[in-house]
Amino acid sequence: IFKVDWDPEMAEKNGYEHYMLKEIHEQPDALRRVLANRVSTQGVNLDEIGLTAEELKKYSQIQVVACGTAYYSGMVGKYIIEELARIPVKVDVASEFRYSNPIIDKDTLVIVVSQSGETADTLAGLRLAREKGAEVLALTNVVGSTIAREADRVLYLKAGPEIAVASTKAYLTMVSVFYLLAVQFAKIKGTINDDEYMGLVSDLIRLPELASETIKVSEEKAKEKARYFIDYDNSFYIGRNFDYTIALEGALKLKEISYLHAEAYPAGELKHGPLALIEEGIPVVAVVTRRSLYDKMLSNIKEVKARGANITAVAIAGDAEVEKAVDDVIFIPECNEFFSGLLAVIPLQLLAYYTAVGRGFDVDQPRNLAKSVTVE
Amino acid sequence: IFKVDWDPEMAEKNGYEHYMLKEIHEQPDALRRVLANRVSTQGVNLDEIGLTAEELKKYSQIQVVACGTAYYSGMVGKYIIEELARIPVKVDVASEFRYSNPIIDKDTLVIVVSQSGETADTLAGLRLAREKGAEVLALTNVVGSTIAREADRVLYLKAGPEIAVASTKAYLTMVSVFYLLAVQFAKIKGTINDDEYMGLVSDLIRLPELASETIKVSEEKAKEKARYFIDYDNSFYIGRNFDYTIALEGALKLKEISYLHAEAYPAGELKHGPLALIEEGIPVVAVVTRRSLYDKMLSNIKEVKARGANITAVAIAGDAEVEKAVDDVIFIPECNEFFSGLLAVIPLQLLAYYTAVGRGFDVDQPRNLAKSVTVE
Repeated sequence: IFKVDWDPEMAEKNGYEHYMLKEIHEQPDALRRVLANRVSTQGVNLDEIGLTAEELKKYSQIQVVACGTAYYSGMVGKYIIEELARIPVKVDVASEFRYSNPIIDKDTLVIVVSQSGETADTLAGLRLAREKGAEVLALTNVVGSTIAREADRVLYLKAGPEIAVASTKAYLTMVSVFYLLAVQFAKIKGTINDDEYMGLVSDLIRLPELASETIKVSEEKAKEKARYFIDYDNSFYIGRNFDYTIALEGALKLKEISYLHAEAYPAGELKHGPLALIEEGIPVVAVVTRRSLYDKMLSNIKEVKARGANITAVAIAGDAEVEKAVDDVIFIPECNEFFSGLLAVIPLQLLAYYTAVGRGFDVDQPRNLAKSVTVE
Repeated sequence: IFKVDWDPEMAEKNGYEHYMLKEIHEQPDALRRVLANRVSTQGVNLDEIGLTAEELKKYSQIQVVACGTAYYSGMVGKYIIEELARIPVKVDVASEFRYSNPIIDKDTLVIVVSQSGETADTLAGLRLAREKGAEVLALTNVVGSTIAREADRVLYLKAGPEIAVASTKAYLTMVSVFYLLAVQFAKIKGTINDDEYMGLVSDLIRLPELASETIKVSEEKAKEKARYFIDYDNSFYIGRNFDYTIALEGALKLKEISYLHAEAYPAGELKHGPLALIEEGIPVVAVVTRRSLYDKMLSNIKEVKARGANITAVAIAGDAEVEKAVDDVIFIPECNEFFSGLLAVIPLQLLAYYTAVGRGFDVDQPRNLAKSVTVE
């Protein structure tokens, strides 16, 4: 018997038109819960998974296995863990991984990610990984789920019940857990110094407040811009590095609930194909929060703009240069470059939500999709 | 001074309406050239790159860096090298790789792939890899190109001049070189036995003839089916394992020249998002050549069909079950499962070509794209 510690109240709409909108607004609280007791001014504390520094150091690689939104959270995880902790991370779609003959062994930490903890392909991936002798850490939202029970270790997402099919708050908590892991791994491996560590820790502590502020400053703008998207059937989302993984998740949201074909591309790949599809008026979303790649993104934006695209940028507050280069900009609060991508997903969730509402679709129950894919 | 051994005749259209169609038809010859002296009944011979068995064994991983079509050839390379030789392979888009801080060292073999040998991002990736102490093997079509000159070792594609912006024969030769490497690595590492080795070798020898036969049996059917695609603006390409990488390349061809938004998806991921976009009549291409994943693909096909999609399958000659499940099937000749994916790309090239012709676009010079991307 597993105790479910959710208040039934949490599963109501509380005056919101849809669960999805409610869940978007619950993200700051979800972040507070997922970070509580795991990060404080003392640092990151993941003792609950019972991994000693010695055990952790023996992992020569990390393999993430997941589907859909959870898969994209793993891609953020890859970027952040490789950059901070210098451990190679592979990320595979579970339906591919389970039928491959993956090169993993006891020195591989396999991280499976599933909101429901029941995703059939992810569960099969977990079992394959264990057969191969790898240790499995599960990130899941559901206590007592099959994946939670079969994994060697579990980190719960504590997002609370997520009812809308399109995941929002679960995604944000998944990504947050990857941040906790990355910062902790980096500290133990000595790839960041104490100052860097404490800097990252204090930014992690600020995340819920920043998410709250992001909703506040971006919702009206996203709602307004959604009116433009309503009339289109195609769009592209572009970004570089972390921002590309955010573009992937943003495009998936639009696909899922507004039935508008959105494809994400690493911005530098545009000229190797999709630029041919850019025509007058086509909506393009550019995520541009990485300062180190700022000039490169700006030049990709101009390339697309020159072909007549209508560009919406998600950028850091006060970025006047991007504002001049695009049709509309949705600002997110200034913060550490490592965390801005995470905030950037919020206006993209809102954009997808209001586009779907504008197109008159059933936001919480999109056609053909189920909340938790428990069959292959 | 580098000797160009191309006959000027080869750069003419020779009666074909477009260079692209001519180049599709030149693929059997391109394969003959790329394989000549590199594979015979004696086995694979890659002495030209001067790698001893000892040197080769020291590589703990392979990192492929490329853009566009060349990037997708690297994805085939990843599947085939990991499956046959059990060496972990990472494949990164060059514009991402060059601005990352990749985890590579002297035990990493970096393979850069570029038809022109001048692709700016790929060249930057090559230089970054060398700075990090990795050895670089280049796969390129152009003797004396910058990438050929700066790499430690080169394998020439010998595709002959490729004029059409959308790559066809260069892609097939890139993939063939990955097959040569995979088979040779597997032999040296002892991950396949002598019988398996000689079986793969004899299949490699048959490739040009199989490609020729594929064109013969698939062209009319692809041309006919293209008439259906003309009226649509959206499509999906699905596959699993190798077949997924072929779906990626097939979708890119359609994007590039027919300006029809085609997105490739691992078939098992459909229900995590894109299934919401499947509506009555939408064209879906299913690549289904991997026997071991046959049942899984068939069930994905039925899932999409049930939502009203119009499905074109590329399948192995005589596959009556797939024929019943889809709207149209384009057959390719029966051959070793490892090579059928390579053949499957040919009808997808033809489908894209005839769709573009039917839509009245400039096939050889698609809007916004350049043959060789020598700027960032």
